[in-house]
Amino acid sequence: MNIYDIAREAGVSIATISRVLNGSPKVKESTRTRIERILEKHHYSPSAFARGMVYGSMHTIGVLTVDVRDLYFGTVTHAIEQAFSRSGYTTVLCNTGGIPERQLHYLELLTTKKVDGIILVGSYFDNRELEEAIRHVAARIPVIMLNRDLQGDNIWSVVCDEAQGISACVAHLSALGHRDIIYIRDTTTFSAMRKLSGFRRGMESAGLENAEAAVIETGKGIEGGINGVLRAAELGVPFSAVVTGDDVCAAGVIKGLKKLGRIPGREVSVTGFNDSLLARSTDPELSSVNSRPEEMGETAVSILSRVLEGEDPPKITLVRPELVLRESTSPFTGKKE
Amino acid sequence: MNIYDIAREAGVSIATISRVLNGSPKVKESTRTRIERILEKHHYSPSAFARGMVYGSMHTIGVLTVDVRDLYFGTVTHAIEQAFSRSGYTTVLCNTGGIPERQLHYLELLTTKKVDGIILVGSYFDNRELEEAIRHVAARIPVIMLNRDLQGDNIWSVVCDEAQGISACVAHLSALGHRDIIYIRDTTTFSAMRKLSGFRRGMESAGLENAEAAVIETGKGIEGGINGVLRAAELGVPFSAVVTGDDVCAAGVIKGLKKLGRIPGREVSVTGFNDSLLARSTDPELSSVNSRPEEMGETAVSILSRVLEGEDPPKITLVRPELVLRESTSPFTGKKE
Repeated sequence: MNIYDIAREAGVSIATISRVLNGSPKVKESTRTRIERILEKHHYSPSAFARGMVYGSMHTIGVLTVDVRDLYFGTVTHAIEQAFSRSGYTTVLCNTGGIPERQLHYLELLTTKKVDGIILVGSYFDNRELEEAIRHVAARIPVIMLNRDLQGDNIWSVVCDEAQGISACVAHLSALGHRDIIYIRDTTTFSAMRKLSGFRRGMESAGLENAEAAVIETGKGIEGGINGVLRAAELGVPFSAVVTGDDVCAAGVIKGLKKLGRIPGREVSVTGFNDSLLARSTDPELSSVNSRPEEMGETAVSILSRVLEGEDPPKITLVRPELVLRESTSPFTGKKE
Repeated sequence: MNIYDIAREAGVSIATISRVLNGSPKVKESTRTRIERILEKHHYSPSAFARGMVYGSMHTIGVLTVDVRDLYFGTVTHAIEQAFSRSGYTTVLCNTGGIPERQLHYLELLTTKKVDGIILVGSYFDNRELEEAIRHVAARIPVIMLNRDLQGDNIWSVVCDEAQGISACVAHLSALGHRDIIYIRDTTTFSAMRKLSGFRRGMESAGLENAEAAVIETGKGIEGGINGVLRAAELGVPFSAVVTGDDVCAAGVIKGLKKLGRIPGREVSVTGFNDSLLARSTDPELSSVNSRPEEMGETAVSILSRVLEGEDPPKITLVRPELVLRESTSPFTGKKE
């Protein structure tokens, strides 16, 4: 008999049980009375749950990430594991590949393993079945979503303001005199949608029209970046600056520009996103948006810890990214083809 | 009462219990009799453990890695998690930072969580206390070590032949006409020691003396690579080729050469190690040793699975790396300073 069994018998979330045990005034009187009776029946006193909610638990957190090999997801996952290990929790790692079936599979697996909480790292595709599954799991286990805002009981979100990060790139390039700025888009996740809206917003703020025509769709990875910029040239789109949503894509753009005989960083400015190790390895080094993966991970842990202690933190926490300038952006030289 | 309790009561490892349950002839008759009595006492028949050893377990594997943000460790960890998830196991992730105290802490933590097996990913520093702790844990839980060969009961090793990988770099450079080849060494782990011995062996095979003087010590990361190559120039060491033990270091070497006004890939050849995403992002792209992280991870899982099923796989498995050629290595031009 543990906190989960109590919650199930009472038909409430463990957060509610926690609130009762912590004497929070947020619980309806009738619910409180019902829970207290169940606790008594099983000879549990609130003090039996002393030192937090998780008495009787495995002190385990499940992390569902798209792919830990990705530098961004790896850094977020590392921050989560490190922060939890300081309080004696272990972290179960699940790489979903971003595939809905595998996300469903892991959600179910983690439920049977009785983890104390689940953190979903990464932006997810629109999938009603998956959203239902998350809400279903959240009825018993608190869920923290990173980079995806989902409404629901027992669900909290930590979101990087990626749109603002991309807008900042456009503002920076515009201030350098660039007017023909294109955006190379390599995925269609929620995160990519937010970045694209940031691009449009940035172009509007800079008084640059034609933002719609300036978006080039391409595939993922370094190849995606290369193909994207070659495609822009092939289409005859004039550009003196390229904004991307990922350092890997930007690394490809740099290669593609060299193939086109255009000097990246001097003739054509390029911005990356994530400020990863790659941003320092390309030539020129990338001006890139630091999306604060450590802060994202640590914020998720802090929110989940507060939930497990019976608190009710704000439903959405916004993390502000920051544009880090390096060699890949410079004043407009007059060349745009 | 589960397999661990039986093993503890019998004073043997779970692998021994497994062998008895699987009717393996490798168990002493007296041990077998003692275990069978304990199983009977607790009303367990071998069939109660049907479908493998892990009945009554949490179906959980602990992975201790240095740092999942590192591209190599991230890839190995991903391979392990994916392979185990196919058989319904979850993977507990621990980032030790390579720090002995944290390794000890995690080993203890995983023991209390009753994981079915532990995989240690990464090369470890020489530390008697840690080795004792690993042997102590291995008395109850099978341990697989990646890139570190440790003798002991219930311990298996999967080792990449890194020395051979570095020797192959030297042989390749020597075949291109290079004679002044330096090695930039950025760490002092076991893995780094193996790589260094591969460099010496390669230099010897190529008939190039003075291998001892050709080793430059430096720090980790891109900065380490930059500083290493600047230091070699400062010391007046002649060189037309640089061998490194890591793509990150090689990315730094490329930057350092540009600072020195020497053209990497043309005037000075450079080799990386790990064949990571970085190898495709630098300019020139890196010739790099593919150390087969996926194969390492999958081999570890296959060995641990066999152990959990009561088999006794070979104690050491060697994985052969492969040199992948790109733009950073080319024939000797005559310039070496």
